[in-house]
Amino acid sequence: MIASYYEGNKTFSVKSAIQVAPGPGEVRLDVAYCGICGTDIHIFHGAMDKRVDMPQTIGHEASATVAEIGEGVTGLAIGDSVVVRPLDNRGETTADRGISHICKDLKFIGIDAPGAFQNSWTVPAFTLHKLPANTDMKTAALAEPLAVACHDVRLGEVKQDELAVVLGGGPIGLLVALVSQAVGARVILSELNPFRLEFARSLGIETVDPREVDLVKLCQERSGGSGADIVFEVSGAKPAALSMTDLLAIRGRIVVVAIYPQPTEINLFQFFWKELQMKGARVYEPEDYEKAVQLVASGALPLDRMITHVETLENIQQAFDQLEHAGNAVKVLIDCRG
Amino acid sequence: MIASYYEGNKTFSVKSAIQVAPGPGEVRLDVAYCGICGTDIHIFHGAMDKRVDMPQTIGHEASATVAEIGEGVTGLAIGDSVVVRPLDNRGETTADRGISHICKDLKFIGIDAPGAFQNSWTVPAFTLHKLPANTDMKTAALAEPLAVACHDVRLGEVKQDELAVVLGGGPIGLLVALVSQAVGARVILSELNPFRLEFARSLGIETVDPREVDLVKLCQERSGGSGADIVFEVSGAKPAALSMTDLLAIRGRIVVVAIYPQPTEINLFQFFWKELQMKGARVYEPEDYEKAVQLVASGALPLDRMITHVETLENIQQAFDQLEHAGNAVKVLIDCRG
Ligand SMILES: [Zn+2]
Ligand SMILES: [Zn+2]
Repeated sequence: MIASYYEGNKTFSVKSAIQVAPGPGEVRLDVAYCGICGTDIHIFHGAMDKRVDMPQTIGHEASATVAEIGEGVTGLAIGDSVVVRPLDNRGETTADRGISHICKDLKFIGIDAPGAFQNSWTVPAFTLHKLPANTDMKTAALAEPLAVACHDVRLGEVKQDELAVVLGGGPIGLLVALVSQAVGARVILSELNPFRLEFARSLGIETVDPREVDLVKLCQERSGGSGADIVFEVSGAKPAALSMTDLLAIRGRIVVVAIYPQPTEINLFQFFWKELQMKGARVYEPEDYEKAVQLVASGALPLDRMITHVETLENIQQAFDQLEHAGNAVKVLIDCRG
Repeated sequence: MIASYYEGNKTFSVKSAIQVAPGPGEVRLDVAYCGICGTDIHIFHGAMDKRVDMPQTIGHEASATVAEIGEGVTGLAIGDSVVVRPLDNRGETTADRGISHICKDLKFIGIDAPGAFQNSWTVPAFTLHKLPANTDMKTAALAEPLAVACHDVRLGEVKQDELAVVLGGGPIGLLVALVSQAVGARVILSELNPFRLEFARSLGIETVDPREVDLVKLCQERSGGSGADIVFEVSGAKPAALSMTDLLAIRGRIVVVAIYPQPTEINLFQFFWKELQMKGARVYEPEDYEKAVQLVASGALPLDRMITHVETLENIQQAFDQLEHAGNAVKVLIDCRG
């Protein structure tokens, strides 16, 4: 087998490696495909060097098949197709009050422990979700970001016919828009980048460039003067954070999906005046993964069209190098099959 | 009868006036007491001159008795003791979606229409809540700010044994602390002003000066390492808004009560990381007024001790003048009895 290792300084090595036999409660997987996430690009840029124990195999958006089963694992058979929910909450304490998926000592597999950019990957069995037979393994690699979107939409309590605005048209923004549409919301996606605008439109999402269209006015028009029901802040852009409150109806909701490294200005007057609500949303819970698996298997969303590039594991360095400059990449998969 | 009028330029006039006979659906009240609110002080300072149609009788924290009843009003009798919920939502439209208390065209009685700093006051009957017989009319004048606190605590979904932090120890902060205690929460009130700290302590509220005590650490200690369940931001201070997210447990809640005229920095990373929730809360709904009336009548809260001064209507100018400089005033009532 071969494995890739992030070595720091924007460098991957690819070496032959030895399969890790599954211990009790573990499963060894043959990795099929693994998507490159924004987080992986952060790691590549050195932004998380303090957290990542180099050399480290990263990657956490994988589809795989079960290759070997450790002691005490039930409900799985060799050859089962699975996706991995890369959260290790074994450090959870009573102070976390049962909120496992964001417990204080959460380990993220693929950052804090070896990830999926390798042929063979050994993980705790509790991280696995089985795929229905014959699920396409490329689109299954999108289950992880899709579960993020399912979590965001679930926490946002999006309802049929509501007017939802998604700020930011990267992969997560696109998926939040698609999942919101799937629950019957009317969606407007706001984005500045012309390629992303065009791409979102090609997936059947209504888009606006807020420099060209008055988004506040558009939300008013589409809601009989009330304003939007919900805004998903996925852009991480300070102007978006400052103006998102203007889009909303009385008691409208905001879900903060983007990561803001620095404090940012928010219009608290609007919170008071319209009794707005805001929730942060991070990763996913098991039910979000189940929903994502169901959406992948159903073929209801145009997930296949979001996969713009597939590269071999041997070429992982080139894949990351290109991604830095690529204006036309949406989702890049690494083919990790041995 | 006499009435007071805000004339602009920090000036009140007090003149003899003519009683307004109640029209259909209206009631004429004999005002008993009316508290001076932070909003009244803003008006006095000229900060709301664009909104207030001068000369205007202001005041909205009144207890009163029914003096005259207009056509079509049922369920009220001459001599009934009442408090007034000073919200006129007759401009409500379908775009407000039934959220009457903060509808777009809400008129606030005592700002946008004549208020209670007069002997006789004519208001729509739908604004009235009856008091039980023998309710003390001075503490009843606190029903309005108490209803604000009841609304804040209700929207915050405060539960028995939860750890609640109140940032800011003015009248509303004190009432939020007392109402939170009344539903069984453990409350810490944070305030910088030594008089307010001492006063809060005298009401049986635990207080901290966050410059002297590490409030984050204290919240951790009181919660087995989890953090606070809820923060009420009542201070309007930028440092409080910036640091409130640090106090909270995973999925902790914030209620924004204070009015921030300018956008302010918020730690959105903490929202994401801990899946925090924030709600704005404004004025009150009828059920909050009913709860406030019940709390006033029960005598369960030390409301009488919050009334530090009572002035005559003739002396309203002096009452406002003094309040500007008074370091030891909590709630000042105007005695409006004719
Ligand atoms: Zn990811
Ligand atoms: Zn008031």
